[in-house]
Amino acid sequence: MLDSRAVPDKTSYRDAGVDIDAQDDALREVRRIARDTFTPGVISDIGSFGGLFRADFSGIESPILVSSTDGVGTKLRVAQAMKIHDTVGYDLVCHCVNDILVQGARPLFFLDYFATGKLRPPVMTDVIRGIARACKENGCALIGGETAEMPGFYADDDYDVAGFIVGVVDESKVITGKEVRAGDVLIALPSAGLHTNGYSLARRIAGDLQTVVPVIGKLGEALLAPHISYLKPLLPLVEQRALHALAHITGGGLTDNVPRVLPDNLDAKIRLGSWPVLPIFRYLHQQGNVDAGEMLRVFNMGVGMVLMVAPEKVDDVAKHFGVIGQKFFFIGNVVSGSGKVVYDAPPSGFASWIE
Amino acid sequence: MLDSRAVPDKTSYRDAGVDIDAQDDALREVRRIARDTFTPGVISDIGSFGGLFRADFSGIESPILVSSTDGVGTKLRVAQAMKIHDTVGYDLVCHCVNDILVQGARPLFFLDYFATGKLRPPVMTDVIRGIARACKENGCALIGGETAEMPGFYADDDYDVAGFIVGVVDESKVITGKEVRAGDVLIALPSAGLHTNGYSLARRIAGDLQTVVPVIGKLGEALLAPHISYLKPLLPLVEQRALHALAHITGGGLTDNVPRVLPDNLDAKIRLGSWPVLPIFRYLHQQGNVDAGEMLRVFNMGVGMVLMVAPEKVDDVAKHFGVIGQKFFFIGNVVSGSGKVVYDAPPSGFASWIE
Repeated sequence: MLDSRAVPDKTSYRDAGVDIDAQDDALREVRRIARDTFTPGVISDIGSFGGLFRADFSGIESPILVSSTDGVGTKLRVAQAMKIHDTVGYDLVCHCVNDILVQGARPLFFLDYFATGKLRPPVMTDVIRGIARACKENGCALIGGETAEMPGFYADDDYDVAGFIVGVVDESKVITGKEVRAGDVLIALPSAGLHTNGYSLARRIAGDLQTVVPVIGKLGEALLAPHISYLKPLLPLVEQRALHALAHITGGGLTDNVPRVLPDNLDAKIRLGSWPVLPIFRYLHQQGNVDAGEMLRVFNMGVGMVLMVAPEKVDDVAKHFGVIGQKFFFIGNVVSGSGKVVYDAPPSGFASWIE
Repeated sequence: MLDSRAVPDKTSYRDAGVDIDAQDDALREVRRIARDTFTPGVISDIGSFGGLFRADFSGIESPILVSSTDGVGTKLRVAQAMKIHDTVGYDLVCHCVNDILVQGARPLFFLDYFATGKLRPPVMTDVIRGIARACKENGCALIGGETAEMPGFYADDDYDVAGFIVGVVDESKVITGKEVRAGDVLIALPSAGLHTNGYSLARRIAGDLQTVVPVIGKLGEALLAPHISYLKPLLPLVEQRALHALAHITGGGLTDNVPRVLPDNLDAKIRLGSWPVLPIFRYLHQQGNVDAGEMLRVFNMGVGMVLMVAPEKVDDVAKHFGVIGQKFFFIGNVVSGSGKVVYDAPPSGFASWIE
C-alpha cells in the first residue's frame, strides 16, 4: 500500500550519485513500517497510487469525516541539531489526532509528506518510524505518503514533514462549543513540554541545545519531549457526550486557543497557579526574561488540553480520569464575558505562579 | 471553516515586525476563497479546528475512501523565479486528483500545507487561489489548511506546498489493473507540458528562464504550463467500467509509471512517434543533449495519462472522446512479457521520433 508513497525520480538520484539500492531498501522498510499500522479498514491488496480505506461506518448514524493537516514547525530544527529523528513524526501524528479529537472525531487514517534536500534513508525511516508508532498507539492507519527530494530547495540535511489525518464522528457527537455555559468547569490535562509550538522563541533563548540544566537535563532533549495524544483518556468522554468543549493548546497558548471554542458572550476565567508549570517553561521564562503574559501566548505552560464540563458532569469526568490514572487539574470556570480568557492572578503578583 | 487553517503564532509575527492586520486580512481572504469551493458535503457552520465533510455516500454500495498526498517539487523554483504564484497550487490539486482517479475515485475534499520563511500575504493568497480554482473545476472542496511560517528554515521568499486529497469510489469500480489483458489497447491523453515532474533536470538545462525560444515562447512560462486534470474526460468511462487500467504519468515517465498498473506477465509495447512530442521536450532534449531513453524516464514527453482498454471497448472510448472534444492517441498495445514497457522505435532510429 505504501506503494502509494511516490518514489522520487531515480534519474535525479543517479545524477547525484546516490545509491539506488539503499533508496529502494529504505522505501521497502517504510512500507513494512506502514503495513504494521494497518487497521481492518485498510484495503491493502489492491491499488498502488492512492491509499484505500473502506468507509464502513456501520454503527454510526450520520458519519462526518473530520480532517486536519499540520506540520511540526521549527521543532524540526531541534531534532536536526540533536540528530534525533524518531520523535518529530510522533509529534506530528499526536498533534493531528488532538486537532480532530476536539471536534469529537476518532482517527481513521494518516498520510505524510516528507521533503528534504538529500534523501538520507536512515533519517527518513526514523521519521516514518515515529509517525507509525503514534499511528499504532492511536488506532490510525498510515496509508500513504510522499517523499520529495528537492536539492537546492532544502539544505542537504534539512527536512520538513507535514501530516494529514482523516477521522470520523457521528453528527450527534460533534463537539462544537455551542453548549458551553457560564458555570462550566475548566479541566486541564497536562502537556509533556512545548508539544509543537513556541520553538522559534525557545530556540533563541536556549542557545546551545547540549547545555545540561538542573532538573531539566539536556535542553535539546527536554525540548524534544513528545506531543501527547489525548485520544485514549478523552474518547470515552466524547462517546458519552460528557464534554461541552475541548481546546487543544497549540500556537497561541491558553490565551488564543481557549477562545476558539468559547461562545461570544462567555469568558474563560483561568486561575494561574492551579496547575504545575513544567520546569522547561520556568527556565525559558527566567533565562529569556519573557514576561508572563507573553509566556501564556507562546507556550502551553504545561496544559495540553482544556475541557469545558457542565458542573453536574464533573464528578463523572474526575472519576473516569481517576480510574485510568490520568492526571488533571481544575483550572477555572466559564463566566459571562466576551469570548476571551481572563487570568486570575495569585495575590503574590501576576508572574509569581511561574517562579 | 478555513478557521481550520491554523494561524501562525502572532507573537513571532510581532517579533519579526510583521503587520498583523495584513496577515489577518490575508487569512480572511483565504477563508473567502476556500468557501467559494464548498460543495454540499461541507459542514461549514460548525467546528473550527478540523474540516468537516458529511460522509453521505448514498448511491454508493460499498464506498472506499481513496487518499493521496503530493507536492509540486522544484517546479516551485520556476514559479518563485518567475514571480508567478497562482499556477503551482493548481498543479498540486490536479496532480492529486489524477492520482486518485487512476484508482477510479472522484475527489471529495482537499487540504493544503503551505510553509514559508516569511509569510507574504499576496504570495500566499495567489497560491491558495490556484488551489481553489482547481478545486472548483474538480468539484473538490478546500476544507482546511496549515500555514507555517518557519524563518531560518525556509529562505524568506521560498515556500513549499503540499496537498492532501480524499475521494471516494464504489468498491465494484475500483481500478486495479488486474483486468489488463494481452491485446488491450494503450490510449494516451496529451499533457500540457512537464506537469509536475522533471524540473531539476529541466531547470539545469533551461538556465535563464526569461529566454524566449521560437515556438515555445518564454521558457519560464512554458515550464509553468499547468498540470491537466483528467477527471472530466475520464470519470464517465470509470463509471461505465470501460477501462482496465489508468497510469498517471508522473516522475519516472512512461517507462516507470505504466508498469505500476501492469500485471507481471504483460508488457506495454509503446510505439514511439505515435503521439506529438511537445516542443518544450524537444528543446530540452536538444539543448541538454539528453538521450531519448533518459527523456522517457524523466519527462512525460507529452503524455499525461495512459488508458488500457479492452479491444471491444475502444470504439466506445474513442466516441466518448470525440463527443467531448478530448484529444487522444493510440500509442500501442499490451503484449505478453514481464511487467515492463518496451518501446517500438521508428525505422529511422530510436531518437528520431523526438526530432
